[in-house]
Amino acid sequence: MTTDNDSSTASGAASTDQTGAENATLPTIISVDAMGGDQGPAAVVAGVCVAARKNPDIGFILSGDQDTLKNLLAQQTGLSQRCEIRHADEVVTMDDKPGQVMRYGKNTSMWAAVDAVRSGDATVCVSCGNTGALMAVSMIRLRKLPSINRPAIACLWPSRNKSGFNIMLDVGADIRADQEDLLQYALMGASYARNGLDLTRPRVGLLNVGTEEHKGRAELKVAHELISKAADAADFDFVGFVEGSDIPSDRVDVIVTDGFTGNVALKTGEGTASLISDFMRQSFSATPFTRIAALLSLSSLKRLKRRIDPRRANGGVFLGLNGTVIKSHGSADETGIAAAIQLAITLSKSDFNHKLAARVASASLTLQTGQTDKVDN
Amino acid sequence: MTTDNDSSTASGAASTDQTGAENATLPTIISVDAMGGDQGPAAVVAGVCVAARKNPDIGFILSGDQDTLKNLLAQQTGLSQRCEIRHADEVVTMDDKPGQVMRYGKNTSMWAAVDAVRSGDATVCVSCGNTGALMAVSMIRLRKLPSINRPAIACLWPSRNKSGFNIMLDVGADIRADQEDLLQYALMGASYARNGLDLTRPRVGLLNVGTEEHKGRAELKVAHELISKAADAADFDFVGFVEGSDIPSDRVDVIVTDGFTGNVALKTGEGTASLISDFMRQSFSATPFTRIAALLSLSSLKRLKRRIDPRRANGGVFLGLNGTVIKSHGSADETGIAAAIQLAITLSKSDFNHKLAARVASASLTLQTGQTDKVDN
Repeated sequence: MTTDNDSSTASGAASTDQTGAENATLPTIISVDAMGGDQGPAAVVAGVCVAARKNPDIGFILSGDQDTLKNLLAQQTGLSQRCEIRHADEVVTMDDKPGQVMRYGKNTSMWAAVDAVRSGDATVCVSCGNTGALMAVSMIRLRKLPSINRPAIACLWPSRNKSGFNIMLDVGADIRADQEDLLQYALMGASYARNGLDLTRPRVGLLNVGTEEHKGRAELKVAHELISKAADAADFDFVGFVEGSDIPSDRVDVIVTDGFTGNVALKTGEGTASLISDFMRQSFSATPFTRIAALLSLSSLKRLKRRIDPRRANGGVFLGLNGTVIKSHGSADETGIAAAIQLAITLSKSDFNHKLAARVASASLTLQTGQTDKVDN
Repeated sequence: MTTDNDSSTASGAASTDQTGAENATLPTIISVDAMGGDQGPAAVVAGVCVAARKNPDIGFILSGDQDTLKNLLAQQTGLSQRCEIRHADEVVTMDDKPGQVMRYGKNTSMWAAVDAVRSGDATVCVSCGNTGALMAVSMIRLRKLPSINRPAIACLWPSRNKSGFNIMLDVGADIRADQEDLLQYALMGASYARNGLDLTRPRVGLLNVGTEEHKGRAELKVAHELISKAADAADFDFVGFVEGSDIPSDRVDVIVTDGFTGNVALKTGEGTASLISDFMRQSFSATPFTRIAALLSLSSLKRLKRRIDPRRANGGVFLGLNGTVIKSHGSADETGIAAAIQLAITLSKSDFNHKLAARVASASLTLQTGQTDKVDN
């Protein structure tokens, strides 16, 4: 864990070490794409400010329009000293196609934010921008880890578990995943659960249409076997097939699926929660009496809202690259952005990406040679 | 619509006409598998009783253990006269494999219930039994409609639409669906929406990971084109791709997807609703004050519960067979079973299956010849 508190300026003091071996003694620097979110740079800087107050030992690199960012930082006491601004002329919009951004996006704030991780100046990058473009830029600038075929996006899902969250991946990096990809998702998801949710031995489940072993698509049956074999060496429990209703359950910590199914499930969950919250609002505003009851229920309703608040679970983590990138919701406000940055700090302090890389490399070796090589986390 | 009220006994008076052309003047008979649900035949008979009181013109055929059913019917005034019992020695359990039931299930109540539709004695069959077995028995006894490759299961989903529901299919009849299957699901779903939800021109959407036309799997892009071409002749509006968050929305009435994705989405929605309802219960019982607030909020909470009550939307309809079969939730209580029977009555009275068959046949002809043949509903 990083314990160094002396990071009064981010610039210069940042680690340029790419192996990460000595990162533990250097200050943690988070790279933030300050543009590209629906609510503009003001919300991003406000989010940075919340995270900075909570974490006095952290520095930031903000990418975007220099003048705008300078003005915004000046409004928050003490924040400028902890943030380095990297000027970028252009912004990736929500409508920009990933391919175009890959070709012509060199001057965007997104590109600069990812490059700060590539150069080793920052450990994790956070962006509210367009998911497809962010994945494309991350892929070409950071490159895939050796032995990873398809990177994945992992999301946090409010659950009945003690931590309050489960992890699901892939939720949309790629619409396809074969058996080996699913195995890699299991390894990466377990590593994320250990480092992000602090679980020693995460329980991993493979999403299917039933829990019986004979059910589902052919690649799922093979993946079941592969993950089952890898579980012990990789220090996780494999609970086998799980169903959609298990995603928020306490049967499992990590849910593995392809990016098509994961994306549909994620958005279905969000849609259902939003429908119920609309219906609840209508129920409580139906008559003068129910409106009074709603007032008296404010504390209960707030407690409920806090538990299912999608902003608390903000941050899709890109896994399988040479560096960690976190995609915050495009419409995130300062609370949401602060949550994504907090997640970045947690992962950065646990030296997550190096542990994940070691874990995946070791499992890949085990699969090839049958040898078991013990690695940390 | 069936207007004949004179159906004091179901037996004998039931239509044996298989073409359905004269069904409009004959009494509606619903075939109910009285065994196989988690709550046993008492819950099923109680559900039949609720539906019978609400629909005085309907007759029933109940399949199951004769003595048990006789006793249960005798406890409800006037019910025996409207129900014919068909004795079956055996019951399909939730653990029975579909293949086994297909081979050895001739003496089960499920088989008898489906056979009552096959023989034309009843128009629609309702069962709480094992989904896989019910689909297998329905397939071999009723057979697929000509031009249907894969039958589908359609479910009702609580939504922001005026009717309170959207339709989604397939939710688990088959884990695969190619572009032609997805087109057939669109046609069948639209027909179900017209007859089950009384929508003149349903809006159909194709589930994908984004709404842009270039997104998603190859078969989805082809299906997009096929459904788009078929929409006008088949009297529905095609809204294009929809996302998971649109499933409960008022953008669309019918959501088309493959059975793997649909099943995961359905169970994810159920899981999310159940998580929120648990969290709500915990919020309202946290302190003495919140418990008092909960008491005062009872009417609001009840109104909410009614709107998202899964029992109201009970009934997965098997589409694409020579006869309609409705799968009620295995754990359904009398309210849930009554809802499934009510759906059976609605579909039966609108002569749904013949209209659906005509619709699918006509679309298939149009695709082959380019000819447009107008059909009702």
